[in-house]
Amino acid sequence: MRTVSYNDGKVVLIDQTSLPGKYQLIKTDEVLRIAEAIKKMEVRGAPAVGVTAAFGMALATAQSKATTTAEILADLRKAKELLASTRPTTLNLHWALRHMMSFAEKHVEGQGFAEKMLSEAQRMADEDVSINQKLAEYGNELIFDGATIHTHCNCGPLCAVDLGTAMAPVIYAHQQGKRVHVITDETRPRFQGAKLNAWELANAGVPYTLITDSHAAAMFAQGKTDMVMIGVDYVVANGDTAAKIGVFGLAILAKYFDVPFYAISPLSTIDMRIPSGDQIEIENRDLDEVRMVNGTYVTMPDANVVNYAFDVTPHELITAFVTEKGIIYPPYEENFKLLFGAD
Amino acid sequence: MRTVSYNDGKVVLIDQTSLPGKYQLIKTDEVLRIAEAIKKMEVRGAPAVGVTAAFGMALATAQSKATTTAEILADLRKAKELLASTRPTTLNLHWALRHMMSFAEKHVEGQGFAEKMLSEAQRMADEDVSINQKLAEYGNELIFDGATIHTHCNCGPLCAVDLGTAMAPVIYAHQQGKRVHVITDETRPRFQGAKLNAWELANAGVPYTLITDSHAAAMFAQGKTDMVMIGVDYVVANGDTAAKIGVFGLAILAKYFDVPFYAISPLSTIDMRIPSGDQIEIENRDLDEVRMVNGTYVTMPDANVVNYAFDVTPHELITAFVTEKGIIYPPYEENFKLLFGAD
Repeated sequence: MRTVSYNDGKVVLIDQTSLPGKYQLIKTDEVLRIAEAIKKMEVRGAPAVGVTAAFGMALATAQSKATTTAEILADLRKAKELLASTRPTTLNLHWALRHMMSFAEKHVEGQGFAEKMLSEAQRMADEDVSINQKLAEYGNELIFDGATIHTHCNCGPLCAVDLGTAMAPVIYAHQQGKRVHVITDETRPRFQGAKLNAWELANAGVPYTLITDSHAAAMFAQGKTDMVMIGVDYVVANGDTAAKIGVFGLAILAKYFDVPFYAISPLSTIDMRIPSGDQIEIENRDLDEVRMVNGTYVTMPDANVVNYAFDVTPHELITAFVTEKGIIYPPYEENFKLLFGAD
Repeated sequence: MRTVSYNDGKVVLIDQTSLPGKYQLIKTDEVLRIAEAIKKMEVRGAPAVGVTAAFGMALATAQSKATTTAEILADLRKAKELLASTRPTTLNLHWALRHMMSFAEKHVEGQGFAEKMLSEAQRMADEDVSINQKLAEYGNELIFDGATIHTHCNCGPLCAVDLGTAMAPVIYAHQQGKRVHVITDETRPRFQGAKLNAWELANAGVPYTLITDSHAAAMFAQGKTDMVMIGVDYVVANGDTAAKIGVFGLAILAKYFDVPFYAISPLSTIDMRIPSGDQIEIENRDLDEVRMVNGTYVTMPDANVVNYAFDVTPHELITAFVTEKGIIYPPYEENFKLLFGAD
């Protein structure tokens, strides 16, 4: 079962907010419901969100009542805006929306426009599956038999269309017969590690230990951790990397304990237009995500809190990026440019 | 209202597991209930636990039906064992129990033995109040006007009999008219920061920001954090320090960001009999503390987890210890010996 798919006129999503207690699907043909699913993180993980938004644009096309090219594009621009407003920092989302919009501008005048938009979204989903596979294969080169890998948040199958990003190499290594063990942070405030990563790893048969985020140093201190592998949301030209809140702290621990730190980064997460991390806008999410767990308060209802979605790990703490075109070592700016074929 | 007191034949505790939602008291004259309160962390914080256990020994004395000295001491040894079994790593608990037992051995044969045991427990409570005050005054010397102090877990009034340890200097500085701001980690798995520290700081009128534990690096990166102040559970001869799980990671962050790290440590938490931190036994607590929050699961009921109560921060990450006899800088082993008047 893919995390995001299209079937019989509807987008089908695994509802990630119900896991691991309940496995249920969201089936919808409404763009507004798609936007809600992204905002409420029923679908989350950069690649999965991007593909979901692309299907949202395909739905908007099929449902547009407009009769002129200009009106159709206006409808699509409205859908794009709605979908873009859900998660300001998720690069894949904006990349996918821009891509679908420019695809629309090219094809709007031809025959079977709605079908073409749907095929394009479908092609993006398939492409994500093959990117996941490449990330798995390159990342697997870093994993030796018996390795213990520390991770944060969920970047396995559920975060992408199929095999995922950060956990793709680990699950692939396990499938290749290597003995691996994963230490997975629970990832407050939304518990993606506890709810999703533990569930996925158990499903895949990969041995794991779930810890609260603040157990990380104690686990490193035991000397069993061989590497950190994390998924990212936004990498800029110099290699500075926005990822789930807590990744920066984990990178500092990895440095202190002299453990390599790998960021698993599909090319779509790398934005060469932004020179460095201090220019990344950080989303401050709903404060009740910190104040409440499962609908009940863990502090006062009016407690003063902040709830940044991401932090920015400086490039000097990152040992290498694993991309679908290979493993990239420093100097990042130079090597990213080679990767993108730019000068 | 003191956190732990004795009134009308009963030990009175603020039930810390009900805060901040409900403020309720536990009143009991049963040693078994006292042990339960310590085990379930209805009373927690090293100094508070120590004094509570001392009152437990006084209750056991008053209730002993024994008629011979040997039988009374046997009853007390049983009570001591029961109380000691609740929290293996909490030095204050064991220190208080040893102290009450040796006090008992000295005074068991005299007149009014039960009253003497009660007065001794009461004296320990009063002594803790005056130690809190000294910690507040010495720690206050480190806090400048406008300072932002990062802390972990709860070491304010609720963790001791009165003003607390780590937050005593901060609350005192605030009372002295200094502008201070506290960043307080929520402290998974038991949320002592969210439930207790935020509540205490709000009560004391100290401005604070509550964060999930993994927000710490992002807060340091903003450059506003001037120092870390934490409470401890167990300091050994070379200065290695067992404290709430997560403190070690916070100390590594403080070092990375070049922020001073202060451990607020009453002398009763320092154990010169143990040379270094690798000999500290770490309690692995109930795994459901990680798996559940407020009675509902945040992962699978059978998820593989660990739940260490403490981690051990190596002495080289600690800038200074604040004790009731002054601020102690490295070299710790040497300076602790001077402090205890030993050679």
